[in-house]
Amino acid sequence: MPQDEFDWIQKHIPASQFHAELVQGIGDDAAVYAPPSSYDQLYCVDTLVEHVHFKRETMSPSQIGYKALVVNISDIAAMGGIPLFYLVSIAIPSHWNDKELDLIYQGMKEAGEEWHLDMIGGDTVSSPNDLVISVTVGGKVEKERALLRTYARPGDYVFLTGPTGLSAAGLHVLLSRGRHTVDDKERIIVDAHQKPKPHVNAGRIALQLHDRIALNDVSDGLASELWEIAEASNVSIHIHKDKVPVAKELNMFPEEKRWEWIFFGGEDFVLVGTIPPYAWERYRTLMKEAGLPLYHIGLVEEGEVTVKVSEKEETTILPKDGYNHFK
Amino acid sequence: MPQDEFDWIQKHIPASQFHAELVQGIGDDAAVYAPPSSYDQLYCVDTLVEHVHFKRETMSPSQIGYKALVVNISDIAAMGGIPLFYLVSIAIPSHWNDKELDLIYQGMKEAGEEWHLDMIGGDTVSSPNDLVISVTVGGKVEKERALLRTYARPGDYVFLTGPTGLSAAGLHVLLSRGRHTVDDKERIIVDAHQKPKPHVNAGRIALQLHDRIALNDVSDGLASELWEIAEASNVSIHIHKDKVPVAKELNMFPEEKRWEWIFFGGEDFVLVGTIPPYAWERYRTLMKEAGLPLYHIGLVEEGEVTVKVSEKEETTILPKDGYNHFK
Repeated sequence: MPQDEFDWIQKHIPASQFHAELVQGIGDDAAVYAPPSSYDQLYCVDTLVEHVHFKRETMSPSQIGYKALVVNISDIAAMGGIPLFYLVSIAIPSHWNDKELDLIYQGMKEAGEEWHLDMIGGDTVSSPNDLVISVTVGGKVEKERALLRTYARPGDYVFLTGPTGLSAAGLHVLLSRGRHTVDDKERIIVDAHQKPKPHVNAGRIALQLHDRIALNDVSDGLASELWEIAEASNVSIHIHKDKVPVAKELNMFPEEKRWEWIFFGGEDFVLVGTIPPYAWERYRTLMKEAGLPLYHIGLVEEGEVTVKVSEKEETTILPKDGYNHFK
Repeated sequence: MPQDEFDWIQKHIPASQFHAELVQGIGDDAAVYAPPSSYDQLYCVDTLVEHVHFKRETMSPSQIGYKALVVNISDIAAMGGIPLFYLVSIAIPSHWNDKELDLIYQGMKEAGEEWHLDMIGGDTVSSPNDLVISVTVGGKVEKERALLRTYARPGDYVFLTGPTGLSAAGLHVLLSRGRHTVDDKERIIVDAHQKPKPHVNAGRIALQLHDRIALNDVSDGLASELWEIAEASNVSIHIHKDKVPVAKELNMFPEEKRWEWIFFGGEDFVLVGTIPPYAWERYRTLMKEAGLPLYHIGLVEEGEVTVKVSEKEETTILPKDGYNHFK
C-alpha cells in the first residue's frame, strides 16, 4: 500500500500534457481547464469493481487500468467527440501491492497516451475488500453537434463499426482457464476483452458528415444498445441476421453461444448507429479510406418501439437482455 | 438491489435543472455541457468507502449521499469557484436495500438543491462487499482567476473561515455511542461530521477581491492544509495558537484532544488561506456583511518550507500529520 497519497499521485502524473486547454492539473483542490469556445464539453463516468467486472485471473493490473479508461473513451466516441482528460478514483484493498498499483496506473497512462488524454485529478483511498476504479472522462464535440441516440428516424440505415461478441467469447476463455494459458488462436478474442479499442475515429468520421446520426457504443450488448436507440428515438429497429458480422474468431464455438455473445455479450466497444440513406455512401467511403470496417445491418422503421431480427422468412423480437449488473 | 440500472437512475434525475449550460443530461453515452466563455472549468473527484469513511453506525444513508457531494463542492469552493454539476458512481453491495439507496440519492439531491448542482451522469454497479460512492463535480471560475495554493507570499496574513476540529469531535462521539443516542449538546459537532457545509460563499467573496489569495479547504486537517500551501508556495507559515479559534462545543473534551482535533482532525471543510495585508480589511468587511466568520491566525514568512506554531514564548514545528488514508 502506498504510504502517502500525495507522493503516490505525484509519481503517476505524466511528464507532458496533450492539451493546452489544461491550465492546472493535479496539485490543487480542483483541476482548472479553459474550454475552447467552439465546442461543447462531454462528461461520462464508468466504474470497474473487482470480482464484478474483473478478477485477477482474467485481467492483469495494467489491463485493468487500461480498460477503466477506454470504456469511458468509448462513451465519448459514441457522441462523436474527442476525449480530453480524466480523473481517477481508486479504492485499494491491502491485498494489492505497490507494484500492482503502479501497473494499474501504467495501464491508464498507456491508454491516455494512445488517445491523448491528460490525467487531471484523482482520489486514492483504501478499501476493506475489493479494488474499485472509477474513471470520469471529459471530452469535447463541435457545438450543438453531439450524436444523440434520439436521432434515429424511419428509413435510416442501421450500422455497426465492427463485429460484436468477441469480448464475451474472450471472457468465456479467461473464466475457463485463466489468463496465463491463452492459445494463439484465442489471442484476438481475449484481447477484445482485456484491451478493447474504442472506435474514436469511426465516431469522428460520423460527426464530420454533418448529418443526423444516432450513435451508441456497444458496452451493454448489441440488443440492449439497439433497444436504447429505439426507445430514445421512438422507432422500431429491424435487423437482418445475415447482415450482422460474425468474426471468424467465433467459429470455434457452438452456433448458439456465438449468437448469444453477438447479441447480448457486451463490452465490445464498437459503435452502433443509424444514418439517413443519402449519407450512407459517403460514410462508407470515408470509413473505407480510413481503413475502418462498417456494416449495414438493418433499417429503422415506423411503428411501436421495438427491436426485431429477421432470419430468412422469420421475424422475431430481439429481447433487450444485454448485460445488466442487477441480474 | 435495484432491478434495472436505467430505471433506477431515471427515478433519481431531478425534475428541473439549475444551469442552462447543460445541453443534455443523463440519458446518452455522455452528458453535453456548453461552457460559458468567460469562465474556466473546474473538476474534482472524491470517494467515500464504507468502513473507511463511514459506517452505518455513524452516518444515515441520506447523510452519506449528502456528504459524498458536499466534500467535492468544498473543493470547488477552495478554488473560489461556483459548483455546477456532478456525476455519481456508486458500487452497491447486496446488504444495502432499495430504500436505503433511495435515501442516499435523496441526500445527494438535497445537497444539489442547496448549492444548485445538476446531476448529469453516473454509473451504478454492484459491489461484493462495501458501498463505494465516487462523485465528480464540475464548476466554473472567472477566467485565469482560480485561487491557487501556490499564491502565498511572505508578509501575507493566514486566515481561516471557521473553527476546525468539530467534525473529528463529532466522529469521536459517533464512534463511542452510535448515531442514535446523540445528546442535544453534541448536535453541532455531530452535524459537522455528518452534514458538513462547504464554504462556497467565503470562497466567492475571496475571489471577488481580485487579489492574490491562496486557498485550501480543510479536508485533511488544518496542519496538513497549511503544509500544502507552504510547500506549493515555497514559504514558511507561522501560526499563533491563541489566534486559532476554538469552538465552544469542544470545551467538553480534554484540552489535549481538543487541539489534536483542531490541528489534525480533518473533514471540517472550512477554508484556510493567505491574503496580502492590504486586502485584509476589505475581505473582513465583506465577510462580516455576509454574516460569515473570519479569523486571522498567523503570517506567511520567508525561509525554509515549514509550518510553525507559537504559544506564548515558545515556537514549535506543527507536524504535517493530518488525516492520511494510508496511515
